[in-house]
Amino acid sequence: MNTLFTNARILTSLGEIISGCLGVADDTIAFVGDLPKDFSAQRIIDCRGDLLMPGLVNTHTHMAMTLFRNSADDMELTAWLRDRIWPLEDKLTAEDTYWGTMLATAECIRGGCTCINDMYFFMDQTAKAIADSGIRAVLGQGIVSGNDDGNSRLSIAKTLFDNYNNAENGRIKIAIPPHAEYTCNEATLLASSELAGKLDAPLHIHLSETFQEHEECKLRHQLTPAAYLKSLGMLREKTLLAHCVHIDEDDVALISASKAHVLHCPQSNLKLGSGIAPIPTMLASRINVSLGTDGAASNNNLDMFEELRLVATIHKGITTNASVITAKQALSMATANGAFALGFNTGRLAPGALADIIRINTKVPNMIPINDLRSAAVYSACAADVKMTMVNGRILYENGEFFFLDMERISSEVERIVERYGI
Amino acid sequence: MNTLFTNARILTSLGEIISGCLGVADDTIAFVGDLPKDFSAQRIIDCRGDLLMPGLVNTHTHMAMTLFRNSADDMELTAWLRDRIWPLEDKLTAEDTYWGTMLATAECIRGGCTCINDMYFFMDQTAKAIADSGIRAVLGQGIVSGNDDGNSRLSIAKTLFDNYNNAENGRIKIAIPPHAEYTCNEATLLASSELAGKLDAPLHIHLSETFQEHEECKLRHQLTPAAYLKSLGMLREKTLLAHCVHIDEDDVALISASKAHVLHCPQSNLKLGSGIAPIPTMLASRINVSLGTDGAASNNNLDMFEELRLVATIHKGITTNASVITAKQALSMATANGAFALGFNTGRLAPGALADIIRINTKVPNMIPINDLRSAAVYSACAADVKMTMVNGRILYENGEFFFLDMERISSEVERIVERYGI
Repeated sequence: MNTLFTNARILTSLGEIISGCLGVADDTIAFVGDLPKDFSAQRIIDCRGDLLMPGLVNTHTHMAMTLFRNSADDMELTAWLRDRIWPLEDKLTAEDTYWGTMLATAECIRGGCTCINDMYFFMDQTAKAIADSGIRAVLGQGIVSGNDDGNSRLSIAKTLFDNYNNAENGRIKIAIPPHAEYTCNEATLLASSELAGKLDAPLHIHLSETFQEHEECKLRHQLTPAAYLKSLGMLREKTLLAHCVHIDEDDVALISASKAHVLHCPQSNLKLGSGIAPIPTMLASRINVSLGTDGAASNNNLDMFEELRLVATIHKGITTNASVITAKQALSMATANGAFALGFNTGRLAPGALADIIRINTKVPNMIPINDLRSAAVYSACAADVKMTMVNGRILYENGEFFFLDMERISSEVERIVERYGI
Repeated sequence: MNTLFTNARILTSLGEIISGCLGVADDTIAFVGDLPKDFSAQRIIDCRGDLLMPGLVNTHTHMAMTLFRNSADDMELTAWLRDRIWPLEDKLTAEDTYWGTMLATAECIRGGCTCINDMYFFMDQTAKAIADSGIRAVLGQGIVSGNDDGNSRLSIAKTLFDNYNNAENGRIKIAIPPHAEYTCNEATLLASSELAGKLDAPLHIHLSETFQEHEECKLRHQLTPAAYLKSLGMLREKTLLAHCVHIDEDDVALISASKAHVLHCPQSNLKLGSGIAPIPTMLASRINVSLGTDGAASNNNLDMFEELRLVATIHKGITTNASVITAKQALSMATANGAFALGFNTGRLAPGALADIIRINTKVPNMIPINDLRSAAVYSACAADVKMTMVNGRILYENGEFFFLDMERISSEVERIVERYGI
């Protein structure tokens, strides 16, 4: 199945803008720009000047937590987890996880996000939802030490890898995600690290999200969380570090040298009162920084356009420097950097890349006049302006319609589940 | 013309939630809750569980600057004004202002904003656009000293008041807006203040937006901008202070004692690298704080849901206290506090208030499940979820359709104008 987009304004990724056509052959972008003579397509979409850009990549989320949306607000992380989220998660069933994830995929796809990275429970159900919905994902069964040094969780994480890594024509990859330094003992961290190495899988972990966590690690190990992970051999090219709000300058140097990736979740970090990660310092040290929404319980949506706008504005305000993090840099974080962190051949509109593409409506009042396409995408657009979402060459959503999701069914299943929780 | 809304979840304003009906008689809310026996309506709208809330009040913007959207980004305020905005404004015509404002009203109305406060040029054209669009507004011709102590501008400002104050059944009010301490000399400020007092009109001014402006005022007058205005008798109940990013604790006390209002524009302040206003301190001192987008050239849209979410999250991150500025407080700032600052009997859904009402679609993925209505409105909703916008009892927008605006015409006029600027 080939698709041809015509009359498009194309943001290729790193800020380059091309006017013209874009062709997709099966799951791959065939060309960008002028239409080759020999390209034929089953479907031709006239974009009428609309913007085509790479799908947004949400590199840190917990999809099923959409069930707990708006259930625990205006509370800091520790109380939020202990008093509200953990008791709710105790009631969570495998089926709940499936429907919560299905709801999340609907929100992602409608909002122009084509790829996510999820660490949570019952991840075989999450994998089924990802398979059903058509979105791209890295998934991992969260590992904590519990009563058995994390052995039972590690075993589930390994089974998930065996069953789903590279499933759905490579659309699903499996990571090994020890939850955090403060929920995993050294045996669990080392076993997780060893397993990830053996499988050549991403190692996904929360790091220095709160000041308290950062300081308590220093008391426990006489090392910052980043230095502690480094001492365990866990900082490396395939390591994904979520948050990194409270890392210091030495940590930045360690992370940079290791080529590990930072998953920045600006809105969740604000909302939980965690703070603001030193992203300009990380960029100056050439760390690959990507974006995430975190779960919908601490955000309270999965809107990547909000994160895109926030990363491009908040660091300007904090540093009182309006040229810190340009629209171009923010776009890279939300697309190419995220794809690079997760190891997918996506995040850019270029021949040979997998076809994860979104079309942005430029006929809505907030997109008139465009004046500058990059700025429009970052500062003016919103998730609802997404007119079409394509993943792996397949259109999942167009003009308000989902092609592989039954929103009425998802909505009624979620309402039934939430009633049981009595939120 | 009476309108009856049924099956609604109603956020009255200060966090109160009522399920049931809401009746509008002509321009006024007749009842909220149970349907009185004697209420009859020409139109009945079944809300099917959707959220009704007060329209959002944008208390500081420059509507016609939508023309300059995405034309000057990643630049700090002084360079942004001097190198980009002022040269563009030199080319601005009266007709441009009309169409730029029409575009802005479309964006506002579609995004659930029912009332704005605008300081700019050619404000008679702005007033015409406001009259045509149906939105509610406070308008003022910006006053700077120029070569004549601001006399020509003061005269235009006075004429605007004579022609438009309380026009359109009270939907338009006129303010007197000296631009700022750094663009007005003492004679201009005193004359503006005297004129506003004589007319009993709001006095609208930019204050301590940047560190540079704040410090330079101290060098010029040995007083902070707030203390300087106080010394001129300009801090009083009808004074509207935009930004207040760099005010100190003494300034907070002065403003609080004067009962002047603070118009907080969090996103513009971030984007221009101006900083973050000390809102928790102002709230603790019982200052009335409302929200604004500022102009679309420094934002780059007029989306009040973004400001609502930002005010409820950014101060949590800055203070690392997740209970600072609750969803309920943020809602007040975006509705009741704004209406109070501008002197309109709106901003709440209660019998006797003017009917400025919006309906939020709760059937979209990002609003499922609701769990908490206040949190959903602040943290989950977006401008595109607005399904209906009513101002003064008149429905201006419903299900994607504008009833008093010709979007195709507006769009083509704006494209024509922008081409002339060569942005």
